[in-house]
Amino acid sequence: MRTAAIVGTGRIGTSVGAALRARGVVTYLLDVDPDAVRVAQGQGAGTTQPPPGPVDIAVLAVPPAQVAHALAAQQGRGLARCYTDTASVKVRPQRQVAAGGCDLTTLVGGHPLVRADHDGPTVASPGLFDGRPWVLTPTGLTSGAALNTCLELVSLCGAVPVLADPAAHDGAMALVSHAPRLVAALLAARLRDVDNATLRLVGQGVRDMTRAAEGSPALWSDVLTANAHPVAEVLEALAADMTSAAGDLRRRAAIAPATPGDGDAGSEPPGDALVRLLERGVEGRGRLPRAAFEPDSGGIGHA
Amino acid sequence: MRTAAIVGTGRIGTSVGAALRARGVVTYLLDVDPDAVRVAQGQGAGTTQPPPGPVDIAVLAVPPAQVAHALAAQQGRGLARCYTDTASVKVRPQRQVAAGGCDLTTLVGGHPLVRADHDGPTVASPGLFDGRPWVLTPTGLTSGAALNTCLELVSLCGAVPVLADPAAHDGAMALVSHAPRLVAALLAARLRDVDNATLRLVGQGVRDMTRAAEGSPALWSDVLTANAHPVAEVLEALAADMTSAAGDLRRRAAIAPATPGDGDAGSEPPGDALVRLLERGVEGRGRLPRAAFEPDSGGIGHA
Repeated sequence: MRTAAIVGTGRIGTSVGAALRARGVVTYLLDVDPDAVRVAQGQGAGTTQPPPGPVDIAVLAVPPAQVAHALAAQQGRGLARCYTDTASVKVRPQRQVAAGGCDLTTLVGGHPLVRADHDGPTVASPGLFDGRPWVLTPTGLTSGAALNTCLELVSLCGAVPVLADPAAHDGAMALVSHAPRLVAALLAARLRDVDNATLRLVGQGVRDMTRAAEGSPALWSDVLTANAHPVAEVLEALAADMTSAAGDLRRRAAIAPATPGDGDAGSEPPGDALVRLLERGVEGRGRLPRAAFEPDSGGIGHA
Repeated sequence: MRTAAIVGTGRIGTSVGAALRARGVVTYLLDVDPDAVRVAQGQGAGTTQPPPGPVDIAVLAVPPAQVAHALAAQQGRGLARCYTDTASVKVRPQRQVAAGGCDLTTLVGGHPLVRADHDGPTVASPGLFDGRPWVLTPTGLTSGAALNTCLELVSLCGAVPVLADPAAHDGAMALVSHAPRLVAALLAARLRDVDNATLRLVGQGVRDMTRAAEGSPALWSDVLTANAHPVAEVLEALAADMTSAAGDLRRRAAIAPATPGDGDAGSEPPGDALVRLLERGVEGRGRLPRAAFEPDSGGIGHA
C-alpha cells in the first residue's frame, strides 16, 4: 500500500491517517469541513492536496448513517481502488450501500475498536489502534484484492484483524457496548433530579457505571438507531431480568423475619435466586479479558 | 472519648480501630472468630484483651442482618455507654432493634462510606474514611450524649458526619449504590455465556459498568435483601425506562429510511425521545461530585 485517502477527519480518521503516515503511506485528507482537514494536517495525518489519481484505499471515517452517501460519492468520482468504513454498526450501512447501487466488490466493512487509555474521546493519535481488534466484514461479493488491502491497512495501524459476519458483529456490539451505553445513560438520568444530600453518598460504583453516559448524545443516538433491533433485544432482556430480580427481592423481604433471633443472621437458603444471580455476575465479569490499562482494584468502595 | 470497643473485625471494624488508635483512643477488639481478632490486633487496630469496664462507645461493624443480635448481646453484658453500627442499610436493622427490646437511647445508627482508592475491598486502613461522608441516623429516642459521642467518633476517623433520616438514607443508597450494583451483576451475567469472539470486542465501557459485579455475592445478597423494597423500586423504574427506550429504538428503526439519500444522514428530528434521554444522562452524570481519585478521561473508548 502506497497511497490512502481519509474521508472524514474526526478522531478515527485523523488517527488512521497519522498511523499510515508513520509507516510511509502517502495520505490524502478529505472532509466537508475545511477547518477539520487543516487540523488533521497539522496533526501529521496527511496532506490537504487532492490525490493525483486513484489511491490504493479510501477509509470512510464517517458516522454510520453517512457511510452509504460517502461511498456512492467517492466511488462516483473514482477516488480509490478499494474502500472500507469505520462505523461501529455494520448491517444497516451495508443494506443502504446495496440499496444505493454501489459497487460492492471493492468494499470491505470495517470497525476499529480503539484504545480507551488514550487522551479522551476526541484526541487523535497514531497509537489509538495499537493491539486492539479491528473487525472486517467482507461479503461473498468482496474481491480478494480489496480484502487483502484492508488486512494490510489494519496491520499498518498496529491493530489485530478480526473477520466477522456483519449481523454477528452488530449483535455482539449491542451486548458489550451499545446497550450498556444506554443503561449508563438511564442510570445517570435518574441522578439528574436527586437532592445534594443523596449525591454526597455517591461512591465509585455508580461513578464507574455512569462514565459511559458522558459521550455525545448526537453521535450515540446515530449509533443506537443504526443498531436498533439488536440493542432493543438486549434492553428488553435486561428489563425482564430487572423485573424478575425486583420481584425476588420483594419476596425475600416478605419472608425474612422482622425481629432478630429467627435465623436471619444465618446463611441464605440453598438455591437462592438472588445469590445465584450475583454469582453469575461474578462469573460473567471474570470472563472479561483484562486490559493492560485496567485498574487493579476489585469491587466498589462501599456497600 | 478515651475507650472504644470494635465488635466485628472485618475491613470496616479494623479500619475504625486503627483510626481511633492513631488518635490515642484505647480500643478493644471483639469478634466471634478469634483468628480475625488476632489479625486485626496485628494491624494495630487495638487489643484482644477484654475491657476492664464499660467503654465510651461500641462500634458494631457487622452485616446488616446481625446488628440487632449484636446490640442485644452487648447491651446485655453492659459493654459500652453508647453504640453505633456501620451497616449500609438503616431502616430494617433499626426495626429489628426496636422489636428486640434493646435500649434505643444509647444507639445511633451509622454508615461510613469508605474511600474507593484504597487497596481493594478487603484491606483495612486507618485512612479509609478520610474526608468521606459518615451517615448518622439518630431517632427521637436517641440521647444527646450518645449522638455527641458518635460525632466525635466520626471526627476522630477523619470523616464528615451527615445526619439523615433512616428511610431517606436507604432510598438514597438504593439509587446510588445498591440498585446499580445489581444492574452491574445483571449486565455481567449476560456476558457469562457469550463466545470468545464477542469477548474480544469488549471495551472500557462495559468493563467500567461491570466492575461492581466483583463483590461478594453473600455480602451483597444480605445488603440487597435488607434494603429490598427501595432497591426493587429503583429496579422496576429502570426496567420501565429500558422497555420504553427499546420501543423508541424500534420505532426509530422503522421510520428511518433503508436507502441513503432520504435525509437519514441529517440531524435528528426535534423533540426526539432518544436524544433527550441521552442528554438527561449527560446532565445526571454532570451532577456527580468528582472524586479526587476519579480518572480524567471522559466517555468510553469506542462506539
